[in-house]
Amino acid sequence: MSNQQIGVIGLGVMGLNLALNMESKGFPVAVYDYWTDRTDEFIANEAKGKNIIGASTLEQFVASIAAPRKILMMVKAGETTDSVIQSLLPHLTTGDILIDGGNTFFEDTNRRTAELKASGIHFIGTGVSGGEEGARLGPSLMPGGPKEAYEQVKPILDAISAKVDSTPCSAHMGPEGAGHYVKMVHNGIEYGDMQLISEAYFIMKHALGLTSAELHDTFAEWNKGELNSYLIEITSEIFGKVDEETGNPLLDQILDKAGQKGTGKWTSQNALDLGISLPIVTESVFARFISSIKEERVAASQCLTGPEAKPFAGDRNEMIEAIRKALYMSKICSYAQGFAQMRAASVQYGWDIPYGEVAMIFRGGCIIRAQFLQNIKDAFDKNPELPNLLVDPYFTKIVGEYQSSLREVLALAIKQGVPTPAFSSALAYYDSYRTATLPANLIQAQRDYFGAHTYERIDKDGSFHTDWSKK
Amino acid sequence: MSNQQIGVIGLGVMGLNLALNMESKGFPVAVYDYWTDRTDEFIANEAKGKNIIGASTLEQFVASIAAPRKILMMVKAGETTDSVIQSLLPHLTTGDILIDGGNTFFEDTNRRTAELKASGIHFIGTGVSGGEEGARLGPSLMPGGPKEAYEQVKPILDAISAKVDSTPCSAHMGPEGAGHYVKMVHNGIEYGDMQLISEAYFIMKHALGLTSAELHDTFAEWNKGELNSYLIEITSEIFGKVDEETGNPLLDQILDKAGQKGTGKWTSQNALDLGISLPIVTESVFARFISSIKEERVAASQCLTGPEAKPFAGDRNEMIEAIRKALYMSKICSYAQGFAQMRAASVQYGWDIPYGEVAMIFRGGCIIRAQFLQNIKDAFDKNPELPNLLVDPYFTKIVGEYQSSLREVLALAIKQGVPTPAFSSALAYYDSYRTATLPANLIQAQRDYFGAHTYERIDKDGSFHTDWSKK
Repeated sequence: MSNQQIGVIGLGVMGLNLALNMESKGFPVAVYDYWTDRTDEFIANEAKGKNIIGASTLEQFVASIAAPRKILMMVKAGETTDSVIQSLLPHLTTGDILIDGGNTFFEDTNRRTAELKASGIHFIGTGVSGGEEGARLGPSLMPGGPKEAYEQVKPILDAISAKVDSTPCSAHMGPEGAGHYVKMVHNGIEYGDMQLISEAYFIMKHALGLTSAELHDTFAEWNKGELNSYLIEITSEIFGKVDEETGNPLLDQILDKAGQKGTGKWTSQNALDLGISLPIVTESVFARFISSIKEERVAASQCLTGPEAKPFAGDRNEMIEAIRKALYMSKICSYAQGFAQMRAASVQYGWDIPYGEVAMIFRGGCIIRAQFLQNIKDAFDKNPELPNLLVDPYFTKIVGEYQSSLREVLALAIKQGVPTPAFSSALAYYDSYRTATLPANLIQAQRDYFGAHTYERIDKDGSFHTDWSKK
Repeated sequence: MSNQQIGVIGLGVMGLNLALNMESKGFPVAVYDYWTDRTDEFIANEAKGKNIIGASTLEQFVASIAAPRKILMMVKAGETTDSVIQSLLPHLTTGDILIDGGNTFFEDTNRRTAELKASGIHFIGTGVSGGEEGARLGPSLMPGGPKEAYEQVKPILDAISAKVDSTPCSAHMGPEGAGHYVKMVHNGIEYGDMQLISEAYFIMKHALGLTSAELHDTFAEWNKGELNSYLIEITSEIFGKVDEETGNPLLDQILDKAGQKGTGKWTSQNALDLGISLPIVTESVFARFISSIKEERVAASQCLTGPEAKPFAGDRNEMIEAIRKALYMSKICSYAQGFAQMRAASVQYGWDIPYGEVAMIFRGGCIIRAQFLQNIKDAFDKNPELPNLLVDPYFTKIVGEYQSSLREVLALAIKQGVPTPAFSSALAYYDSYRTATLPANLIQAQRDYFGAHTYERIDKDGSFHTDWSKK
């Protein structure tokens, strides 16, 4: 009776595909959904002939899983997760392991870990990235929770995850909500990557006049080099897609109002709490907000003026190459910020996040998978205490070489009136971070002037106050 | 016995000066501090011969105030406020009015308003800006709370507040935490103003080579025109201040690590919750974060390279004028963002914030007081439903004329490697807001490609999904 190796609750697109993935790797699976129709349909179709059994009650579901039970919840993050846990609890026994694979806010996972520990239940919060296809064939997994419980589910997580050079894209991120935290930062970085690519596209389209076919070719070409990544690959394919109805490039028929589900926002809000500068992700979230007020923008475009558009007079191919370098450099700055945030979180929450492993599991399965994550892993392998990616020799060399391209591209965009919030913030971050002396001395002087907040001096220790208005 | 018109709890620098201010306007005051020494000292010195009485117990304090009692709390925001309220409650009766003048997070004020209403006590949360001098001679006040209670304290608030053209810089901001909310946005805007001024200073110093004496003169000159404001005025004075010990400009002896107390951060986090683009304030908060990691920056400055510094070849006075225009345009963009945020909050929280009044009370007493707030008031008087300051004719005309200066200044800063996060984000915001069609169509396509999030089309209503990888 209790033979299934793992149970899956919630047969939405992610839960269903993860169940099939597990079974295909040799793990017998029990499944349950609040809507029994859904379970029956799954058992009668996709799961037919497979070692997957469906349960119509939670009691039956739990009873069919071998002890200590391992149960993966793939349900809507938030109140639903709490309510599922409450329903399950009476059926569980000490030592059982509950895994939350939803897009859960890490503080909720912290709370649930503590609550369940009191009941003797291990709780693992895991990030799952890769969408439907990833869930079925190999996602990137970011599990966090008690190490001893993680070790028990590791064989299953490793087996179902994506592989890069035979290495599973799954590793223990730390205790409590560390896994969901890393997933949150992953999503923030994803916002940044997408915004940077969009700005590169817009400059090439509006300042250089590239057609959709040329953009398709350009991104395909870029995907062969150091920018090689899933997002560049699909961007190229998107530019190649023709709308069947109009015969136009499909992209041109799509409304420019970007949606979002809130994880980018969480990343920015957390960076603000931790005192970490995260401008690229944050400007990307703000860019989505501005995109969504389409009607206001259309009205504003009638009265707010920009520069006169002038045909590009330079060498087009050289500028395209400069844009490629600007994109890579900005991407490096964005990951530098994201990893600095994880570093601050690791200290603040006492998690000991393994940054090299993070880069490793990002390499495959997930949306931000990219070749250059190997360079990030190498950087942390060389120096686990690296304060910022920009000061790793590999990255230092690249950004040193590429910064002039970023300046050139920004000069063009600014002159032509093409908005580049993320590119601009990448350079501002770079120029701030590499500047030994910033103008913050003036801010300290102002704060001391109007609020007696005191200031520090460069030539001696202590706090000082000046009566500034005294002549 | 119960003759005092108002009570003040907390004799820190703000409470003490507000008590003196009230008494000087003809309101007899009762004061109380947890530390009775402080009360005794105040009564024996600053309050000597004035109609201010000190109480050594809360009971005695409350008994000395005429009913319905009006009590202003000037204590540390957070748990202290709650604990003072709890100690006071047993001594209060229905209809008494409690006023919190601390730098309180607006959600705490919402909560306390509801809790105290249940006890029949009116609660008013008021922003107080202007520092020590403002508290004594006339602060800017931003009270929020029940209208009927506000009307009872209005005579006192109006009397003690700053005046501009005989109009008090105090007005009812709305119910619940509306007053503390407006104060929070005020502080966020203050962060933005200070950062923009700092960037202007840094460009003039590093790209144009202005000396401290020249910077003193330049800001003094700017203060005579449309930039006229308290912060520009004190900036000029700061550049004129000589360090008595070294004989150098004092500013050059101050460490470039800017501190902060968190209200700028709250403003950004709230903008993210409301879905409002607030890049200038947020970049300013991030700039303070980066300034604080001085040791990392000094190390990075040894390995991260910038552009070769070249002497400025253009007309120096023309560029200074362009920087002035860039600063004014960026400031306009920042206030446009802050007022858009208040507008969203007003809708979201059902507050009906009077934007014109907000601009009016910002005109005097507070740190961001400036001549151009009159133009903002005029804009909202003309159109209370104005979606964004940029589309008010007065501001549309200025930004249309000044945008080329901002582009010119940014081109110089970028070429010279001077970090300009706030200036850059101002232009990116302007160029995004005035662009009818942004590249967010690509973001929608990407989200549909990897996550089946669907997209909208420009030519028909509905949600659409494409199998993008199908050839």
